[in-house]
Amino acid sequence: MKKLINDPHDFVDEVVDGLLLAHPDRLRAASETRRALVRADAPVAGQVGIVTGGGSGHLPAFLGYVGKGLCSGVAVGNVFSSPSAEQMYEATKAVNGGAGVLYLYGNYVGDSLNFDLAADMADLDDIPTRTVRITDDALSAPPERGTERRGVAGMVFAFKIAGAAAERGDSLEKVSELAQRTVDSTRSAGVGLSPTILPEAGRATFELADGEMEIGIGIHGEPGSRRGPLETADEVADTLLAVILDDLRLGADEQVAVLVNGLGATPLEELYLIYRRVHNTLLDKGIGVHRPYVGEYATSLEMAGASVTVLRLDDELTELLDAPADSPFFQQ
Amino acid sequence: MKKLINDPHDFVDEVVDGLLLAHPDRLRAASETRRALVRADAPVAGQVGIVTGGGSGHLPAFLGYVGKGLCSGVAVGNVFSSPSAEQMYEATKAVNGGAGVLYLYGNYVGDSLNFDLAADMADLDDIPTRTVRITDDALSAPPERGTERRGVAGMVFAFKIAGAAAERGDSLEKVSELAQRTVDSTRSAGVGLSPTILPEAGRATFELADGEMEIGIGIHGEPGSRRGPLETADEVADTLLAVILDDLRLGADEQVAVLVNGLGATPLEELYLIYRRVHNTLLDKGIGVHRPYVGEYATSLEMAGASVTVLRLDDELTELLDAPADSPFFQQ
Repeated sequence: MKKLINDPHDFVDEVVDGLLLAHPDRLRAASETRRALVRADAPVAGQVGIVTGGGSGHLPAFLGYVGKGLCSGVAVGNVFSSPSAEQMYEATKAVNGGAGVLYLYGNYVGDSLNFDLAADMADLDDIPTRTVRITDDALSAPPERGTERRGVAGMVFAFKIAGAAAERGDSLEKVSELAQRTVDSTRSAGVGLSPTILPEAGRATFELADGEMEIGIGIHGEPGSRRGPLETADEVADTLLAVILDDLRLGADEQVAVLVNGLGATPLEELYLIYRRVHNTLLDKGIGVHRPYVGEYATSLEMAGASVTVLRLDDELTELLDAPADSPFFQQ
Repeated sequence: MKKLINDPHDFVDEVVDGLLLAHPDRLRAASETRRALVRADAPVAGQVGIVTGGGSGHLPAFLGYVGKGLCSGVAVGNVFSSPSAEQMYEATKAVNGGAGVLYLYGNYVGDSLNFDLAADMADLDDIPTRTVRITDDALSAPPERGTERRGVAGMVFAFKIAGAAAERGDSLEKVSELAQRTVDSTRSAGVGLSPTILPEAGRATFELADGEMEIGIGIHGEPGSRRGPLETADEVADTLLAVILDDLRLGADEQVAVLVNGLGATPLEELYLIYRRVHNTLLDKGIGVHRPYVGEYATSLEMAGASVTVLRLDDELTELLDAPADSPFFQQ
């Protein structure tokens, strides 16, 4: 895969530079290294701050979800690498409006260690923090080890709902509870068709033969649950949805939100084929789609593939999901 | 490139099916074959209708630009093929609110022939039509043959501005004049890094060697102006912007809108690298970016590559560009 880049070592800093040049009305740097970015209007007095973070290479994740009704700040790591605790701490200070800060991020070891360190630093400043780790990837660990699961595209629902709760003035306890309830009600499963190439390393994150796909792949190329011959869009949709429905124990008459996510190189057209099958299968089971999202929400550079995410809704989650939100990458 | 599809012959119809399932509140079919789609609230009484159309495989183009403040209807062709005149005519009837209909589409032979036929059919129904062809691809023909140029991502500016004019109640003459003024003020130039594969044909639209790029490539893989070794993001941005600035004869103190478009497989991160360089170069020349757009706006399935589009603004175009717009793929 050929890349439109300059010096690979400058990749992330130049991407951040481009983002800040394009969106100065909505994003600003909260540290000298510019690896901590916050809403342009941060801090919002009296409002719970939400800080996320993670490696680069996943746009719109993570920094695409900083905005009104979403996260308030983000720490930006190198490609597929955790940001530092210092940058998480800088973002924390910059978004602290006096109501505390929620750390809401994908469940990866490096991110967890660094966010825990950042929480200790914030504590010394008397900024109360809470932590909710996103664990939506149903194929990354069995149900009995659900807290070990990775966070993938389901993060969008967690950001959306926690962000709406913070925006309406909920307390840190309440925002954290809603974020955790969203995570507990969200499952994702994905399929990879081609690997991605890290700008600095210049080599593929994994190998897949011609005509082969990998079910359960992670957004950094982590191994999935099985490999097999490439199937049709309908078959892939059926496989992914079956995992999710089984794990969520969804019943008839429930309402859900569905997100069909492209991993980078898969055309939007193909994502709509997946959505079509998921929608019709849910309908057959008496499950209604309250709100669909189809597009690229959490990518892995130029990986080909897709994931399906389902969120079980209740009245409160529905109201928060439907609330307005606005970032350079997400408007509703 | 592996595809998540079902029977290739059903590709477009299934994509349309998925779109209508996902967005029934915003889009509806205006013909039995569902190859004519219109705003769910069409026709809007007293408002000029805008019908576009083109081949499939370019999402969000073309049908992603049907919505409030954008186009009112679209005819949907097979992959990379013109829709039929009948479907254009069905869309025309469905969006006709009594103020006439503008045909606004990319300058390709098949589309032009069919839209001209549709205009004849509309004429028999006493629906007045006007035609504006989008010709923004600066590298597809020299300046003295500007009316022969192809339409590419610059279509977004034409849809946005004509749509805003229709929405505010402008006459068919005025909407057409503004669409033409937008086209005359818009230039694009693109680079391709990898070919795309048609679902039915199963083969690449063109061949590019490892480490090679093609400057001036079209969104159907039409040959560009030159091939050469892959350059850095900055070099590519400089090359594309130089073509545009020269052709538009942009001077200092002018204001522009910039669109950096991904052709399908190129990560958003790389598009921001291109934007960064374009922004800084314009700034150095005293040209201000009033509004940037960075993302996938007109793709070629899974082609890797990017294009840059610049629109020279005046007060009226600025006001119309800034007006709200809403489709499933474009919100502002």
